[in-house]
Amino acid sequence: MDAVTPREVILCEVGPRDGFQYEEAVIPTDLKVEVVRGLAAAGLPRIQVASFVHPRKVPQMADAEEVVARLADVEGVTLSGLALNRKGVERARASGLRAVDISIATWDDHSLENAGMTVDEAVEQAAEMVATAREAGMEVQVGLQTVFGFRKPGDTPVERVVGLVKRFVRLGVDSISLADTTGMAGPVSIASRVEAVRRVAGDVPIVLHLHDTRGLGMANVYEGIRCGVDRFDTAFGGMGGCPFIRGAAGNVPTEDTVHLLASLGISTGVDIAGVANVTHRVADHLQKDLPGRMYRLFD
Amino acid sequence: MDAVTPREVILCEVGPRDGFQYEEAVIPTDLKVEVVRGLAAAGLPRIQVASFVHPRKVPQMADAEEVVARLADVEGVTLSGLALNRKGVERARASGLRAVDISIATWDDHSLENAGMTVDEAVEQAAEMVATAREAGMEVQVGLQTVFGFRKPGDTPVERVVGLVKRFVRLGVDSISLADTTGMAGPVSIASRVEAVRRVAGDVPIVLHLHDTRGLGMANVYEGIRCGVDRFDTAFGGMGGCPFIRGAAGNVPTEDTVHLLASLGISTGVDIAGVANVTHRVADHLQKDLPGRMYRLFD
Repeated sequence: MDAVTPREVILCEVGPRDGFQYEEAVIPTDLKVEVVRGLAAAGLPRIQVASFVHPRKVPQMADAEEVVARLADVEGVTLSGLALNRKGVERARASGLRAVDISIATWDDHSLENAGMTVDEAVEQAAEMVATAREAGMEVQVGLQTVFGFRKPGDTPVERVVGLVKRFVRLGVDSISLADTTGMAGPVSIASRVEAVRRVAGDVPIVLHLHDTRGLGMANVYEGIRCGVDRFDTAFGGMGGCPFIRGAAGNVPTEDTVHLLASLGISTGVDIAGVANVTHRVADHLQKDLPGRMYRLFD
Repeated sequence: MDAVTPREVILCEVGPRDGFQYEEAVIPTDLKVEVVRGLAAAGLPRIQVASFVHPRKVPQMADAEEVVARLADVEGVTLSGLALNRKGVERARASGLRAVDISIATWDDHSLENAGMTVDEAVEQAAEMVATAREAGMEVQVGLQTVFGFRKPGDTPVERVVGLVKRFVRLGVDSISLADTTGMAGPVSIASRVEAVRRVAGDVPIVLHLHDTRGLGMANVYEGIRCGVDRFDTAFGGMGGCPFIRGAAGNVPTEDTVHLLASLGISTGVDIAGVANVTHRVADHLQKDLPGRMYRLFD
């Protein structure tokens, strides 16, 4: 392993947001709360618990405030919420969360479709959102979508990504997330884009948010580790996957990632069996297998 | 990428054997033949088409001779059969195959359970099998099972693996396959065991046969590539997985592997869409999704 390899890695569990968001049947609030508690008990240091978006757009997340309120006693874990506009940040703050994740597109047509504005407009709005969150003393992460490809692998200009990272680093964000929304990353693009972003990110941690759409999720985590990345978004059981993107698969599975990292001698503080319990609970509720492999070895 | 990285990789498609073998419903001979023809047309340079074992032990492979006979006109592809004893080699030869794959266990209890003999006895028998195949002018591969772990990751002594490789290299085999039968390999053990085996294998090519039981299949392929391995067993759609091992998952998917290698600039000559067609055909027949990801992007 290279000298830059991290000895500890921080995983952010995104299953309760990125995973549940795309399920057709609405997950009961009770189950959401139980899942987050189970993940916290399993040692996940960060959990993205909800998305503060319009309930008509994403009915699955209509109970965001209630979920957060019922988790008020969870300690020692950073709970965060996703926000796509200023109202979302304000809702996250009012809910009592101490951390907010802001996500913006890197392509105009993608941004127009999802947010009704160009990337430039979204960046202006995101700058205000960062300011709002910082004034409220919240931890802020900005995530860039489709960093490794939008219509085809590598088509997102690296200069655009680097320019956006520069901008948000100057605004004082606490971390920058590079999302492979479409699952188009491979080890070569992971290495080159992480390197390019690191040059301008300074001390601001880089987070990799990877999807397994083309089966390279774990190979990309491994390459990220080799490049010294020490923060990853993962989802229990590999939940997630957008019904609007053909073949779109879930986030990299938390259990499989912990197993990979353990095999590399890297500590996460996460108990695989504890996460697998949560996965089995949700798989039973949804009456379907989830894509992850490692959880199947536990029951 | 390291200097040793191969520019071309040879994939051996094992779905028709390792994949079909564990399916409960017997696959019709017509479909087996159609699948192998489809895989050959998609550019797979090597295909393991059958297993010459006792039909009572593996009813799924009872039509081995018929499958081979009906593929007699397939050109430009090395078709092979798996054999576990001398009779298997003789049947493979009589069927007209020009290549045979011999597989032996590395643990006495595993060998006793599957083959009714100790590893030493199995090695003696395999030596005779190699001689029989060589006399017949057949290409011979010897595969070692559970090289990366049997009951737990890494518990198979590397000295035992190296000793067996030495023995078979002296017998003049054409290639040595290292199988992660239980899916316990990780990048660290891939690197260390490939390195140890290479020291004694000389010019004899090393093949990696990887399963995705713990989700690390593609990360392990990537590490194999980084170590200069240029031959891998893969299965269309990630078929395979033993019903007797809890959570056992399939071989690494052919389509996903080709995609990974292409992203690394490595040529395989395999057309992903062609393989994905085969996978969809079989998934439709079995009326279930297969574990691979990449094939889902084609229909």
